[in-house]
Amino acid sequence: MVELKGDERLDYLLAENLRIIQSPSVFSFSLDAVLLSRFVNVPIQKGKIVDLCSGNGVVPLLLSTRTKAAITGVEIQERLYDMAQRSMDHNGLSSRIEVIHGDIKEMPEQIGYSKYDVVTCNPPYFPTPSVEEINKNEHFAIARHEIMCNLEDVMRVSSQLLRQGGKAAFVHRPGRLMDILHFMRMYRLEPKRLQFVYPKSSKEANTILIEGIKDGNPDLKILPPLVVYNDDNEYNPEIRRILYGEE
Amino acid sequence: MVELKGDERLDYLLAENLRIIQSPSVFSFSLDAVLLSRFVNVPIQKGKIVDLCSGNGVVPLLLSTRTKAAITGVEIQERLYDMAQRSMDHNGLSSRIEVIHGDIKEMPEQIGYSKYDVVTCNPPYFPTPSVEEINKNEHFAIARHEIMCNLEDVMRVSSQLLRQGGKAAFVHRPGRLMDILHFMRMYRLEPKRLQFVYPKSSKEANTILIEGIKDGNPDLKILPPLVVYNDDNEYNPEIRRILYGEE
Repeated sequence: MVELKGDERLDYLLAENLRIIQSPSVFSFSLDAVLLSRFVNVPIQKGKIVDLCSGNGVVPLLLSTRTKAAITGVEIQERLYDMAQRSMDHNGLSSRIEVIHGDIKEMPEQIGYSKYDVVTCNPPYFPTPSVEEINKNEHFAIARHEIMCNLEDVMRVSSQLLRQGGKAAFVHRPGRLMDILHFMRMYRLEPKRLQFVYPKSSKEANTILIEGIKDGNPDLKILPPLVVYNDDNEYNPEIRRILYGEE
Repeated sequence: MVELKGDERLDYLLAENLRIIQSPSVFSFSLDAVLLSRFVNVPIQKGKIVDLCSGNGVVPLLLSTRTKAAITGVEIQERLYDMAQRSMDHNGLSSRIEVIHGDIKEMPEQIGYSKYDVVTCNPPYFPTPSVEEINKNEHFAIARHEIMCNLEDVMRVSSQLLRQGGKAAFVHRPGRLMDILHFMRMYRLEPKRLQFVYPKSSKEANTILIEGIKDGNPDLKILPPLVVYNDDNEYNPEIRRILYGEE
């Protein structure tokens, strides 16, 4: 039996035969994390994957259904790290998914330079908030705002962890696209696949998925649009397939 | 009566009550030029607009239906310049649209620095071709390949022509997105609106439309996706509206 603390729930993880510990007052995963888990190219049979800013471990859990590679999740908040670790235990995945409680900026030193095939990250989206906002809910503030790490940290660390030819995949907001492309090039993560997620077909994109290859050749592809809702505010078939495995 | 030379035709210009001279062996306008003409933000009542790499003048002709601003088209190929000039005459637009036969790189010197409200350009998309390709059809080669001007020339000249706060809009291929964003920032044309054109909803984007503001603040929006064909290979309603004015 899994131990649940405070207001934690043991939620079903969508289409997968997995459960994940969530807490409305601490952290719940978003559609963005799910999209990232399906977007990134992963080796099927073996390899080493690291997920930065891992939260309650949703990306490692979902990746484990697509690959037999060894997966490492890194989370700086002890409370979230603890949730993630218990979710891995509950799903019997502790031998395949290692969860590290630590600062991503220290990871290259700690787990090795240029050793990973894939890095994923669903980083904090927003600039540093006011002290009041942080005081209101520190867990949300750290997960959502660039308090403990900023975009450049994420890109630099991703590049340091990746072997040549390794892949880095991120999910973020379109407003940061210029910065993302800038830092990816700066840290030798040549952008190769970019997908825009539109809430509806008539709306501006609100999410981007991007994958780069360390020391790859310039050749950027814009993948087909991902439109979340149809005109009746129902999930489109592709999103339903991603979320629930429906065809 | 308009004088037609060789294999030229006097084609209808889509939804507009305009005619345009085209030639299958020299130059015909593309959907890209039409999309650019509808994408760019233009002042309605007055102002100065310049269209670089103007070809047979399709962009100035279409812009004339959206604005009362003075429009200048610049084309380096005399044969195309001549077609454009005769199309303006035929449509009675010679007083509103000036066509210049010249090199865009000389335009700031010739027509003035920082005087324009809007610059548009549907530039050559491809790197310099082989001598054989050029010999085969020089007109097509110059219109399609970066022989007489490259992307950096387009960006630098656009910035030089624009006043502060003026807008530059371009249409290009996604493979050049990294370079476009790079040069736009380099020449102070901060990207503000970016739209991807997908041939079908399940296909990768094959065209990008982008608008920047000279010395604008960073704040990039990704506009709703433009999908050209539906699953039955018919134009989607938005494209029909752009092309034929249908609702």
